[in-house]
Amino acid sequence: MDSLSSLLQADKIDELRTRLANMIPADAANALEELDIEQIFVVFHLLPKDLSAAIFTYLSPDLHVKMVEALGSQEMTDIVNRLKVDDAVDFLDELPANMVNAILANTRPEMRASINSVLNYPEDSAGSLMTCEYVFLPEYLTAGEALAQIRQKGIDKETIYTCYVTTPKRVLKGAVSLRQILLSPNSRPVSELMSPTVISANTHESQEEVSRKFQEYDLIALPVVDNENRIVGIITIDDVVDVIVAMNTENIEKMAALRPAEDEYMKTGVLKLASNRIVWLLFMMLSATFTGMIISNFQGLLSQMVILASFIPMLMDTGGNCGSQSATLIIRGMAVGEIDPSCWYKVVWKEFRIGIIVGVALGVVNLLRIFLFMKDVNFAVDLTVTATLFCTIITAKILGCLLPMLAKVMKLDPALMASPMITTCVDAITLMLYFTIARSVLL
Amino acid sequence: MDSLSSLLQADKIDELRTRLANMIPADAANALEELDIEQIFVVFHLLPKDLSAAIFTYLSPDLHVKMVEALGSQEMTDIVNRLKVDDAVDFLDELPANMVNAILANTRPEMRASINSVLNYPEDSAGSLMTCEYVFLPEYLTAGEALAQIRQKGIDKETIYTCYVTTPKRVLKGAVSLRQILLSPNSRPVSELMSPTVISANTHESQEEVSRKFQEYDLIALPVVDNENRIVGIITIDDVVDVIVAMNTENIEKMAALRPAEDEYMKTGVLKLASNRIVWLLFMMLSATFTGMIISNFQGLLSQMVILASFIPMLMDTGGNCGSQSATLIIRGMAVGEIDPSCWYKVVWKEFRIGIIVGVALGVVNLLRIFLFMKDVNFAVDLTVTATLFCTIITAKILGCLLPMLAKVMKLDPALMASPMITTCVDAITLMLYFTIARSVLL
Repeated sequence: MDSLSSLLQADKIDELRTRLANMIPADAANALEELDIEQIFVVFHLLPKDLSAAIFTYLSPDLHVKMVEALGSQEMTDIVNRLKVDDAVDFLDELPANMVNAILANTRPEMRASINSVLNYPEDSAGSLMTCEYVFLPEYLTAGEALAQIRQKGIDKETIYTCYVTTPKRVLKGAVSLRQILLSPNSRPVSELMSPTVISANTHESQEEVSRKFQEYDLIALPVVDNENRIVGIITIDDVVDVIVAMNTENIEKMAALRPAEDEYMKTGVLKLASNRIVWLLFMMLSATFTGMIISNFQGLLSQMVILASFIPMLMDTGGNCGSQSATLIIRGMAVGEIDPSCWYKVVWKEFRIGIIVGVALGVVNLLRIFLFMKDVNFAVDLTVTATLFCTIITAKILGCLLPMLAKVMKLDPALMASPMITTCVDAITLMLYFTIARSVLL
Repeated sequence: MDSLSSLLQADKIDELRTRLANMIPADAANALEELDIEQIFVVFHLLPKDLSAAIFTYLSPDLHVKMVEALGSQEMTDIVNRLKVDDAVDFLDELPANMVNAILANTRPEMRASINSVLNYPEDSAGSLMTCEYVFLPEYLTAGEALAQIRQKGIDKETIYTCYVTTPKRVLKGAVSLRQILLSPNSRPVSELMSPTVISANTHESQEEVSRKFQEYDLIALPVVDNENRIVGIITIDDVVDVIVAMNTENIEKMAALRPAEDEYMKTGVLKLASNRIVWLLFMMLSATFTGMIISNFQGLLSQMVILASFIPMLMDTGGNCGSQSATLIIRGMAVGEIDPSCWYKVVWKEFRIGIIVGVALGVVNLLRIFLFMKDVNFAVDLTVTATLFCTIITAKILGCLLPMLAKVMKLDPALMASPMITTCVDAITLMLYFTIARSVLL
């Protein structure tokens, strides 16, 4: 099959148009990414306007910025006018403020008002995720009248599958699905069909909270209301899926001591990536100075028994791994709302018992391994190492669950307490234990 | 407000019924979890059958099993008959095989056939996630006829918002949204309205693949087809959200060297939790033996310069942290489909340059910190530590990106290569470098 670029060069315009029209917009956008910017403009002029707007939504942020720079605000306005409000907001969010103002100055007034109302909400809020294109029905309509209204006004709406029943002042009274309207007799009043208990979100609620509501109630759309319970927009599930994925990436990055980045790895410059990593690395390197000081303190003991040094890596690594296992489970459990820090004593008690089981298992293996395979290590050293291992495991398990819960209670982000932070704490405690036990057992 | 339990005891049946009927099923299920099992049975008998089935879906797995044990298969069958196919499958999946057979033996034949067809697919496949309750339309219908058919047959379907156009043998020809049908003139043929390019999944495709399609194409439903492109079911977005969340939890757990667990932390026993952790801990403890051997090998050097030991924790931790930062970004990038292992050389080149920047930054801070604040350490030792730090950082960055990509190419799970595995490798290399540099600089 010929590539888009060769079709363009051979002037096979009809074939090109048919090909793109038969593609799903997301795929068409992918195919366009291969072309250079002038070719993309040619293609955009060839396509029906609705299709080009649909494809535009799926182009990469890079290309969006390039197109704005090349096209100027007047032509961009034509495109923005045809986007859905939430897609327009996503697109404008990527641009520098002066470009946004230039484009908004020319959009149609209703569109501008809608976009502005969404752009004004804080970045992480429900308000900034919503679209203003929803169907609302006055409470006095019948099912038949409602259906007629949806058929007439539904064309520009993001979804017509859930409709919101409101008073004349747009106060939310209930929700009714298109399904219920369609499967009911025409004469039935909407107010009888609607469910009066509607899950909604306040404009200032966090997006994390919003995504939890979608998961808990299996929603496909959620109305967003202001403080007087007036509906101002809706959030649809496709945008929530993006939020869930982004939140997960952010959490994983924080747990690995990375400053969360908005951009994709392959598209981010080396300097930016390096700077996202350096801050935490420096912090952790400097806190490891503390562990170094502990070892310096015990230099006398160590120079008498150099063999002790060879177990330091094993003890530190096992402690770090134990701690990060617990921390990971607790951080994830709190993120999905399953673990509540107010029950901290239950969690600690559970981790303590797990620590004992794990400690005994690893301790026995370690004792035997040294006894059987390291003939030059005397049994007192073996016992010292094993006793330290056991204590380290229990300490690591308890710190691993306590620190993230403490962070949560102090309104800090628990993910920041993950493995690297806990490793640093556990290291220090492990070494103190090790040398203290060694001094009393061996000297 | 009185609790459900006190309403029950006071025999205020009407109030109880109204209260539950006005609640959202997920909330009603939460409220019921507070009651004991006999009370739940009483409540279930008081409620309209559809409502009790809707609430049943949201009860916890624990309670499901208890109810089956107490009710017996006959009464359970009545409940299962009223569930949606995919909810019934989720519920049956939690039960032991003999209970499943007893319940299935009594369900209505179409329901049994549907459930069985879904239960027969592998656990991680698209087939096991689908429901058989979808709307299909013959290709010769008009919009008006299609609407009439949806109104007549749509009642039991999971979603009526996307309908699939098929040949008489159910071969998938296209998809048409209820929205398009509703907003078009009644006489327009469905075959003109439908979009002929439909994203679909094969029954044996992985659920990870399915969730990626939902994200990429902003879908709310996805048809599942067999090898002859005949539609056998659909997957809806609410189930995909659950898959995305579960996949993320699993990845995070694997990255922290935990065997992924299906159950919630608070509901899992101590022994089970401990056993999920011990395998990897043992493996990593034993591989740390190797690092111990390296130190033993250099005992002579170490006993001459005990001060070297005090920098081991800092070097090991920084190496481990650097490696896990890179590994995390690469694992996540591959999971969301952004990084492709076939471009491994680009990634390595990027990490190499990041390593140099990070290495220089941390190296300078380290050199100065030792020079200024640790007067008893001579400058040659300072240089040795800093040179090792620099080499460790670069090695860790490169291993951190190479190992997960290697795992992917070898069809292993990249998440298993995360921080603990990389820490172990980096530790060994760091110590080798450290002592080799020390021996040539200091002796």
